[in-house]
Amino acid sequence: MSGRVVVLTGGVGGAKLVLGLSHAIDPDSITAIVNTGDDFSHVGLRVCPDIDTLLYTLSGKSDEVRGWGRAGETWNFMEALKSIGGEDWFLLGDGDLALHVERTQRLARGQSVSEITAAYARAWGLAQEILPMSDDPVATWLETDEGRLEFQRYFVGRRCAPVVNAIEFVGAAQARPAEGVLERIGASDTRAILIAPSNPYLSVDPILAVPGIRDALRNAKAPVVAVSPLVGGQAVKGPTKKLMDELGIEATPQTIATHYEAVLDGILLDERDQGSAAPALRCAYADTLMKTLDDRIRVARAALALADEIAG
Amino acid sequence: MSGRVVVLTGGVGGAKLVLGLSHAIDPDSITAIVNTGDDFSHVGLRVCPDIDTLLYTLSGKSDEVRGWGRAGETWNFMEALKSIGGEDWFLLGDGDLALHVERTQRLARGQSVSEITAAYARAWGLAQEILPMSDDPVATWLETDEGRLEFQRYFVGRRCAPVVNAIEFVGAAQARPAEGVLERIGASDTRAILIAPSNPYLSVDPILAVPGIRDALRNAKAPVVAVSPLVGGQAVKGPTKKLMDELGIEATPQTIATHYEAVLDGILLDERDQGSAAPALRCAYADTLMKTLDDRIRVARAALALADEIAG
Repeated sequence: MSGRVVVLTGGVGGAKLVLGLSHAIDPDSITAIVNTGDDFSHVGLRVCPDIDTLLYTLSGKSDEVRGWGRAGETWNFMEALKSIGGEDWFLLGDGDLALHVERTQRLARGQSVSEITAAYARAWGLAQEILPMSDDPVATWLETDEGRLEFQRYFVGRRCAPVVNAIEFVGAAQARPAEGVLERIGASDTRAILIAPSNPYLSVDPILAVPGIRDALRNAKAPVVAVSPLVGGQAVKGPTKKLMDELGIEATPQTIATHYEAVLDGILLDERDQGSAAPALRCAYADTLMKTLDDRIRVARAALALADEIAG
Repeated sequence: MSGRVVVLTGGVGGAKLVLGLSHAIDPDSITAIVNTGDDFSHVGLRVCPDIDTLLYTLSGKSDEVRGWGRAGETWNFMEALKSIGGEDWFLLGDGDLALHVERTQRLARGQSVSEITAAYARAWGLAQEILPMSDDPVATWLETDEGRLEFQRYFVGRRCAPVVNAIEFVGAAQARPAEGVLERIGASDTRAILIAPSNPYLSVDPILAVPGIRDALRNAKAPVVAVSPLVGGQAVKGPTKKLMDELGIEATPQTIATHYEAVLDGILLDERDQGSAAPALRCAYADTLMKTLDDRIRVARAALALADEIAG
């Protein structure tokens, strides 16, 4: 089968799926629609963590051991910044900085995050299309027992320690989908729309909160298939499980399916969750742990197979 | 003798003199008034090359071999910036970047270059006072045979190759001396005012172009002594000699003395220039080449001795 595959994605986990997918089908036919709710301004620079994770992962520049940022990164900027009393709670690698400095400058000149992301992807020879969910600012904020925290303050600054009571996507109601987002979702040659196994509440929900995207998914001709972020009732990485507990949501495949219910045609679950009650929609099972490239290719293929099966 | 010593200075050469002086007298009693005509905005960041050279030199962080920037510098930012098509004609080291990023952010928050410089100096434990000549923007521009060039485009971008016809300090007429500048020059406890062997036309003239500074020097109780940038009729470093040739100015001690005439009480010349016609003001001679720290201390002492002799 041919046609475009669209992936709604956050950072690390989603980037792995898109990388796997890039080895399963023609990378030219992949569009990643990326969460920008984590974006923030730090030391005067505009940082887009999920977009950059996609760029690094797809170009082979990511640090596989550390799990974030660039391979071979150095930290002299941070050392020097610390020495002059600058903010040091968020680590900016020396190479990574280039993306933020150049982006900040281009934004000041009137370019959009879409244009800047496309320019970086082009410069690195990426075939995949990487679209921010929106070029308008959307910021994920968390109501916690330590007060209201912007996403990176919670995620990096406090390492997800605070108890979360509520999540808010500031600016989402006014945000417009970036150019291409609704078109790619709704296009007649779109083969499948995948929701990456990113955190549903922190990484995918901001995308769904941009007016128009949820409706486009609901009306899409292509099947929408989520890859569950749970493996045996646990989140593989990050604060998903802790967050679900705090929000009083059971960490089961059923809950994930229900969460995406209105837009979903099918869900790929981990084989370790086979015993639990299956959601009331098309399911498939696979080993969804994505440690190696082969794992990622396998998961991408399984999600795509389910979508193709649904499309019939 | 005690009292404050004020040094008017550009970057590398002047920083060497201030460093030597810091070993000759109490660093607490030294004020450097620094050229900011070379300052410019690059990739969206505010860069103050001469101030940073002072900060690096006085804190022992400068790269003595390369002659500019930080020792142990790395260049991953530049590599990454180049890979995304960013401007690469002006080199920003990874550690060096921290000063520009933090400065840009602080300026955006309303802090002045003076305040930011003082904060950096304090963070690095410097005893010397480092004052920008002005907190208002002054930009050195050059009329050349390749058109009108901002200083760094001429100096770094074109490595001083273009033929210079005229020099302009844009904004100087509207600039006010930074807080403390006129006070330090005119103070009754100021022992001496030294003009560093920086380029008179590119590094010292911008300082003298800030309204009020020239008058303050003329009226200062303390003797004003210049250290000639010439050694045997040649400039030690940088484009001084080439520039003088292009401007039709003979590179002699007399010309330097005449250039500073209205503000000068004495001049320290290199012993290799002893044969040439002595300027019509108080002169002293020394080996003014500043390769080692001992050289720098010797030159600072000689300049100070001449000032003390003039003060009587």
